[in-house]
Amino acid sequence: MKTIGHLINGTIDTQASRTQDIFNPSTGEVSKQLALASKPTVEAAIAAAQAAYPAWRNTPPLKRAKIMFRFKELLERNADEICRLIGEEHGKIAHDAMGELQRGIENVEYACGAPELLKGEFSKNAGPAIDSWSEFQPLGVVAGITPFNFPAMVPLWMYPMAIVCGNTFVLKPSERNPSSVLFIAELLHEAGLPPGVLNVVNGDKEAVDVLLSDARIQAVSFVGSTPIAEYIYTTASANGKRCQALGGAKNHAIIMPDADMDNAVSALVGAAFGSSGERCMALSVAVAVGDEAADALISKMSEQMKSLKVGAFSDKTNDFGPLITRAHQEKVVGYISSAEQQGATLVVDGRKPTVAGYDKGFYVGGTLIDNVTADMTCYKEEIFGPVLLVMRVNSMQEAMQLIDDHEYGNGTCIFTRDGEAARYFSDNIMVGMVGINVPLPVPVAYHSFGGWKRSLFGDLHAYGPDAVRFYTKRKTVTQRWPSAGVREGAQFSFPS
Amino acid sequence: MKTIGHLINGTIDTQASRTQDIFNPSTGEVSKQLALASKPTVEAAIAAAQAAYPAWRNTPPLKRAKIMFRFKELLERNADEICRLIGEEHGKIAHDAMGELQRGIENVEYACGAPELLKGEFSKNAGPAIDSWSEFQPLGVVAGITPFNFPAMVPLWMYPMAIVCGNTFVLKPSERNPSSVLFIAELLHEAGLPPGVLNVVNGDKEAVDVLLSDARIQAVSFVGSTPIAEYIYTTASANGKRCQALGGAKNHAIIMPDADMDNAVSALVGAAFGSSGERCMALSVAVAVGDEAADALISKMSEQMKSLKVGAFSDKTNDFGPLITRAHQEKVVGYISSAEQQGATLVVDGRKPTVAGYDKGFYVGGTLIDNVTADMTCYKEEIFGPVLLVMRVNSMQEAMQLIDDHEYGNGTCIFTRDGEAARYFSDNIMVGMVGINVPLPVPVAYHSFGGWKRSLFGDLHAYGPDAVRFYTKRKTVTQRWPSAGVREGAQFSFPS
Amino acid sequence: MKTIGHLINGTIDTQASRTQDIFNPSTGEVSKQLALASKPTVEAAIAAAQAAYPAWRNTPPLKRAKIMFRFKELLERNADEICRLIGEEHGKIAHDAMGELQRGIENVEYACGAPELLKGEFSKNAGPAIDSWSEFQPLGVVAGITPFNFPAMVPLWMYPMAIVCGNTFVLKPSERNPSSVLFIAELLHEAGLPPGVLNVVNGDKEAVDVLLSDARIQAVSFVGSTPIAEYIYTTASANGKRCQALGGAKNHAIIMPDADMDNAVSALVGAAFGSSGERCMALSVAVAVGDEAADALISKMSEQMKSLKVGAFSDKTNDFGPLITRAHQEKVVGYISSAEQQGATLVVDGRKPTVAGYDKGFYVGGTLIDNVTADMTCYKEEIFGPVLLVMRVNSMQEAMQLIDDHEYGNGTCIFTRDGEAARYFSDNIMVGMVGINVPLPVPVAYHSFGGWKRSLFGDLHAYGPDAVRFYTKRKTVTQRWPSAGVREGAQFSFPS
Amino acid sequence: MKTIGHLINGTIDTQASRTQDIFNPSTGEVSKQLALASKPTVEAAIAAAQAAYPAWRNTPPLKRAKIMFRFKELLERNADEICRLIGEEHGKIAHDAMGELQRGIENVEYACGAPELLKGEFSKNAGPAIDSWSEFQPLGVVAGITPFNFPAMVPLWMYPMAIVCGNTFVLKPSERNPSSVLFIAELLHEAGLPPGVLNVVNGDKEAVDVLLSDARIQAVSFVGSTPIAEYIYTTASANGKRCQALGGAKNHAIIMPDADMDNAVSALVGAAFGSSGERCMALSVAVAVGDEAADALISKMSEQMKSLKVGAFSDKTNDFGPLITRAHQEKVVGYISSAEQQGATLVVDGRKPTVAGYDKGFYVGGTLIDNVTADMTCYKEEIFGPVLLVMRVNSMQEAMQLIDDHEYGNGTCIFTRDGEAARYFSDNIMVGMVGINVPLPVPVAYHSFGGWKRSLFGDLHAYGPDAVRFYTKRKTVTQRWPSAGVREGAQFSFPS
Repeated sequence: MKTIGHLINGTIDTQASRTQDIFNPSTGEVSKQLALASKPTVEAAIAAAQAAYPAWRNTPPLKRAKIMFRFKELLERNADEICRLIGEEHGKIAHDAMGELQRGIENVEYACGAPELLKGEFSKNAGPAIDSWSEFQPLGVVAGITPFNFPAMVPLWMYPMAIVCGNTFVLKPSERNPSSVLFIAELLHEAGLPPGVLNVVNGDKEAVDVLLSDARIQAVSFVGSTPIAEYIYTTASANGKRCQALGGAKNHAIIMPDADMDNAVSALVGAAFGSSGERCMALSVAVAVGDEAADALISKMSEQMKSLKVGAFSDKTNDFGPLITRAHQEKVVGYISSAEQQGATLVVDGRKPTVAGYDKGFYVGGTLIDNVTADMTCYKEEIFGPVLLVMRVNSMQEAMQLIDDHEYGNGTCIFTRDGEAARYFSDNIMVGMVGINVPLPVPVAYHSFGGWKRSLFGDLHAYGPDAVRFYTKRKTVTQRWPSAGVREGAQFSFPS
Repeated sequence: MKTIGHLINGTIDTQASRTQDIFNPSTGEVSKQLALASKPTVEAAIAAAQAAYPAWRNTPPLKRAKIMFRFKELLERNADEICRLIGEEHGKIAHDAMGELQRGIENVEYACGAPELLKGEFSKNAGPAIDSWSEFQPLGVVAGITPFNFPAMVPLWMYPMAIVCGNTFVLKPSERNPSSVLFIAELLHEAGLPPGVLNVVNGDKEAVDVLLSDARIQAVSFVGSTPIAEYIYTTASANGKRCQALGGAKNHAIIMPDADMDNAVSALVGAAFGSSGERCMALSVAVAVGDEAADALISKMSEQMKSLKVGAFSDKTNDFGPLITRAHQEKVVGYISSAEQQGATLVVDGRKPTVAGYDKGFYVGGTLIDNVTADMTCYKEEIFGPVLLVMRVNSMQEAMQLIDDHEYGNGTCIFTRDGEAARYFSDNIMVGMVGINVPLPVPVAYHSFGGWKRSLFGDLHAYGPDAVRFYTKRKTVTQRWPSAGVREGAQFSFPS
Repeated sequence: MKTIGHLINGTIDTQASRTQDIFNPSTGEVSKQLALASKPTVEAAIAAAQAAYPAWRNTPPLKRAKIMFRFKELLERNADEICRLIGEEHGKIAHDAMGELQRGIENVEYACGAPELLKGEFSKNAGPAIDSWSEFQPLGVVAGITPFNFPAMVPLWMYPMAIVCGNTFVLKPSERNPSSVLFIAELLHEAGLPPGVLNVVNGDKEAVDVLLSDARIQAVSFVGSTPIAEYIYTTASANGKRCQALGGAKNHAIIMPDADMDNAVSALVGAAFGSSGERCMALSVAVAVGDEAADALISKMSEQMKSLKVGAFSDKTNDFGPLITRAHQEKVVGYISSAEQQGATLVVDGRKPTVAGYDKGFYVGGTLIDNVTADMTCYKEEIFGPVLLVMRVNSMQEAMQLIDDHEYGNGTCIFTRDGEAARYFSDNIMVGMVGINVPLPVPVAYHSFGGWKRSLFGDLHAYGPDAVRFYTKRKTVTQRWPSAGVREGAQFSFPS
Repeated sequence: MKTIGHLINGTIDTQASRTQDIFNPSTGEVSKQLALASKPTVEAAIAAAQAAYPAWRNTPPLKRAKIMFRFKELLERNADEICRLIGEEHGKIAHDAMGELQRGIENVEYACGAPELLKGEFSKNAGPAIDSWSEFQPLGVVAGITPFNFPAMVPLWMYPMAIVCGNTFVLKPSERNPSSVLFIAELLHEAGLPPGVLNVVNGDKEAVDVLLSDARIQAVSFVGSTPIAEYIYTTASANGKRCQALGGAKNHAIIMPDADMDNAVSALVGAAFGSSGERCMALSVAVAVGDEAADALISKMSEQMKSLKVGAFSDKTNDFGPLITRAHQEKVVGYISSAEQQGATLVVDGRKPTVAGYDKGFYVGGTLIDNVTADMTCYKEEIFGPVLLVMRVNSMQEAMQLIDDHEYGNGTCIFTRDGEAARYFSDNIMVGMVGINVPLPVPVAYHSFGGWKRSLFGDLHAYGPDAVRFYTKRKTVTQRWPSAGVREGAQFSFPS
């Protein structure tokens, strides 16, 4: 059985004292072994990054960007293989993996604009004959810690921008699906990245804690669940590191009485069940304003869900695949059951889907639950499964209050045709990413991604313009030149 | 004896269960009493800020800025009174207080540009008929905690920008010199600020800890010493607050052999002894490259220091005044003595200055110490007094290594006439604010202020463009309008 | 009778070989004489501006901005007097003059942000150890030529930004109402502007042609009618000058069937008749989609127009005042009559208003004309009077076609509650300034003002960010420092 | 013999009523025929661009940019062939053609950042519940007219940015060397550009005049000589088009007494003789401050010129190749002779170079002329050949005066080691592109290219950020949503 190792200083290292199983969630079987990095391994990666830093920092941004251009080419050329690796270890269907990869590539495209993005601010005559300018200099060695649900995209949110800004990087991806991460990292080396600029270590908390405590790490980017995000942020901050840590979500859609209901339902099906709901931007709660809207929603939704197809990653006709682990499957099923027990109405029950030939896979089918209330466990926590909760309220204000009262503030959307309702909602809702008739308002690569409240810890959002600020620090120079006589002196030296 | 109170919801409150003496450092006498805020008092201020927030947030930025324009007028009109209040409680001579105030006013001027500074980013056709934009929304209630050494300027670094961005504010200034702070805050109300938008509470650690723990406070800005800055940053971060905490400094000037030595010496005298060295940007170490430069520096410096005049704040012919407290005076004297004991050469000794008529004032005279080495106590710690250390090295590289090895990275400068040396220095030195022949490279109000290493905790610097980012959070909206038939429908309703 | 002169090099000059009458349009009487500048007078103004340029250019932007801050104060303090001067010579009622002045002041506020607005772009390591930056340097002496209809506002669109960018300025305002212009220019001097930086010359085509041909003038800003704008632009361009020339308008409002009709009618009354329609952003055509909307519009509009009050500038209860000249009054009346003759329906006829006690004033009352078609003279030309044309179409597309087919493309708006209609309209309409339920979509001072098609000649719009670009030119510097041995040399000079 | 045609609507069209010879300047022989576009041909190209515009305008910028990414790949993959085509028709040696192409590709890289570059400005609450934003919309069909000297680079300055901004394009390249232009344009189609978005017409004044007069052309970019630039600018402006027209140059280098002379000489050799001096940024005048500097310069320069190798494009060991035509060769020789006749000292004479085997080629060798004065013909006019003039002055001020007195203001540089001299020079010199120890200060692709004085007609420079502004127009939208009852109504419809 193949052992997946680390990529340190441009070289794959598969030696390991500890290993862990990697599963194929579609079949439920172990497919590979993962080497888990010990402290010395992580320190070797940091040392490689540290050694590569001085030369990389002094490489002109334009040259750094040229490597990103080639990286984009290689990602596109190898897209099918990347998607296959993602599917095998994550369970995602190819069309979904391709969507994820495409989003990741768009972050690489954004990084190609580094020369423009890194421009500083120049002030002539800040004082008499005094100029002042601010540069945005790289930080040094920075780290990224990424989750299982977007093995290609989330690392690509981080290191292309970090690297193109002049930093060197140590990435610790999810231990569930490291293969696409390593494959992509090797493509970046093929594109011309010098060894040591990007290093990948696989591991668990032991590896993470080295990254959080080693003084050579200047900054940490994290995406995962809120409790871990909070731990990462607090620990990294206390250790003097810059940190941005993105956590969990509970994304609500408000369905207004004037919404185009067919559109809304189509949008919700994709946004709730796509990737089995294992997305931090998945729409997991639909809040219908008025029973009329709620009834129409439930009716059209349950009708449309009849054609939903769950199954193995390898069949492209499937809509979505298995969950990531047996444990997670059981947890999701538990949430559904708790909803039923706590009084909600189970309209479509996906707890026991039949997936012919894959009975050991970690599947849960699309599930629709009506009459959910704010005190239910299924509402208070993030399910991260293909489960859509429906809540009924009497007014838009009530719907907004629900959203603002929730712990998370990642994404939200409203379905309406009315300009005023949309503007009021987007202005006032305490959520960082807002859709107006757009169910998954993931910002495009040239805006930045970030939730509010306990969905993000830190000042600056992920990718886009904020990433430039996160991965650089401001240096302000104030300059005055005293005369050395060269200019005036010359006038006297050579009289006519 | 007058008791200084709090400004909460537009009203002065002087009731207090605990009070503390306020001294006039020039005379060494107690002049006023300060009410120390209890937890309920701080909470009342937070509540006032919270109540004022919704209306203030919805006030157009242009209207908010108009109040800043009037505030600037009032600051200028009342400049003499402000400087008198500063002098009385801080000991700063009027010309120095005026300089501080002027810098503060320039931050108010910058805040007047809010409508431009708050512009978001708009992307037409992020997708087909989909628009996306990012807004920079205020955070809510934010807090500022400020030091004694710039009672007018440092608060003005914070709340004008915070407020003009739509936040409401609770300020806890230094307990040493609160009078100018309160006077200025009242001017802002006179300029039209609604009650509750800016609140000032005086107090000590009890007040600070409420600000760090109360869930209604969204962000904390701090300026002070590094140990406190670290405590503030770690605590506020752990409590889920955005935080920027500026700490101590040890600012080095490199004197290159080709420097214009007369210019350099003049610059150093002001930068080392101005405001008794109680500035986080004070130049406290001169690193001379080569003995020739060092000898010239010592010789010219000690000559020029003969005319330095230390004395009471009320005499404008004085160059600088007393230190802030008796305890601090003794601490500075202790540093000077330790230097002597550890082998440095005391060239000019300011430990016992004569200030006729003010023998109880907290004075230390200008002090010049040669042959300082990196292991001495006076070098390792921030003295915050009128003491200039001179170190001798053999190369620019050695000088830069000294600077980079020091715990702090606030400001630094180089004196040279050579373009290449200046560019190499400013590019590579690990310090946030760099001067080239400029001894106090404090960024102008439209750049941002911030040190590196342990001189600043947080991602974003103080004032200037970074303040806009610190005091706002990004919200990204993605919008698609489904047809409601209004546009096309009309075509069919009224056929020709 | 008082003679109004020029302001050259900080001094008023009233000598003149030629003069012209200035009227009070409310009474129809001559009230003052205007000195008309000869070629030598204009050249003296240019020479003063040229002489003032070098010192002004080198004055730090922050210092230049400080004068603008004081200018704003003085404008506010003297607002009543300014409005009185405007009213006397233009006929505008005080509330309208105050609105104009307020908009002008907001341009001064924007100019106060010069230090931020003038920041250049800095690129570290454009190549190895090569830095490159772009500065935005002033042009030199620039000129402005402004119309009668906004004597305070339009000049304030121009010279505050031009001057704060480091240029010096020659202004030739309208010969109809120069008094407020001169008064305001003197306030700017009172605010601290050095003599020669702003010069005002009064005159006619003789003066204009000097400004268009003199080689010392680097750029010309113009606001007026389209034929003159075209002449100015073509001539100035052919003479190698930078030019922006804003011309005429025919601003349409589309009234959709779903519009909030009461809101729309209120908005239209102000936008069509305010300032007697003598605004380049006046709404002069309402295009109703469907007869139902049209009938409702006509009915509500004619009802609301009953309370419209036209009269002398000195009575603040009037809604609007006289037209600027007898000739213009007759021209507007002629347009109304032509509409009637060409088959339109005259719903409300303002040709003979009664203004008790002012029977020689140049008054025209609010006029509403229905069933206007695209071939009528009143539609093809800009009326610049208190006349609202109503057109009836069957679809939004037809309404948009009308707008796009018109020669002008200054402003337009749509009244609808529908997000999709608004987005389609604003995206596709060939007009530079678009309102969505906003009848006068004049951009705020921190956006820029400019029409499309034959409403503006030039690349860059007036005021706001575009003004910074118009009044500066880019200089790009690329810098590499060869070693002079200072940095490395020192290492060898002083071996340890 | 092959006939080179046009590329219209994605198809090559070689039919022509008129043709013109294309030469191989290295051999002096005719190698191809060029079809010259008649008015109907140009109109067909415009019509194709017009037809392609609506769909292209609505293509999201991200999708437009993706084509630019693929274009870059194809340019790199086909670089050798492009350089061969350039060499054959221009005479440029492969290393020089590769340099040109590389610069062109960097403009394509910049265009890949379109989604970031096209961001508009968004203002929430410009008024109460009123939002306002500015979009940068494409212009429509725009044209480019480009010179022979950079057949690959200059067109790539223009159409990638124009197209990525949403415009469609008609390019008229130089009639001397159209083959690389067409080949590159076909690569862009291979990259996925829809037909009609980019059209190439070959021709002469007949074609140009159609582009300048046809009402469908919204803007014209031109690079060429100053007299033609002025004609283009004046004509296009008078016809209501936006225009930027870049003209000639006379680029001076100041050699200060403290310059690193070896560096300076190496830099000058490349900058004066590279590409036979047929560059608008060629350094054609060296101004030495003081005779000592001048003598050293002449001595080292003439020494280094001994190894200069002129010859056919096909031999990569050559330093530079022939001039573009026989006529131009004779013109350059004439300038050299005139210098001699007017009293200058011909130090190195390149009038009769020997190029074995290519005696009919249009060669001129590297030429160095000392003691040139400002009244000589060779100084007043642009030579555009491998000729370096040396002038001797007594002071830096005198050198700067020479530069400022010259008609052109394209590029300039100074060689010095002194910070103060460099800063004074770059601040004050009336030239748009300034080098400090950089002989060819061509801005990188993410800054903009443009001279001052008669070297550029128009407000905005070529490529970089200015190109975004040149190829778009600002539209400002102001939006207020009246309540349609959807938001509040819902509260009342469903009471609890």
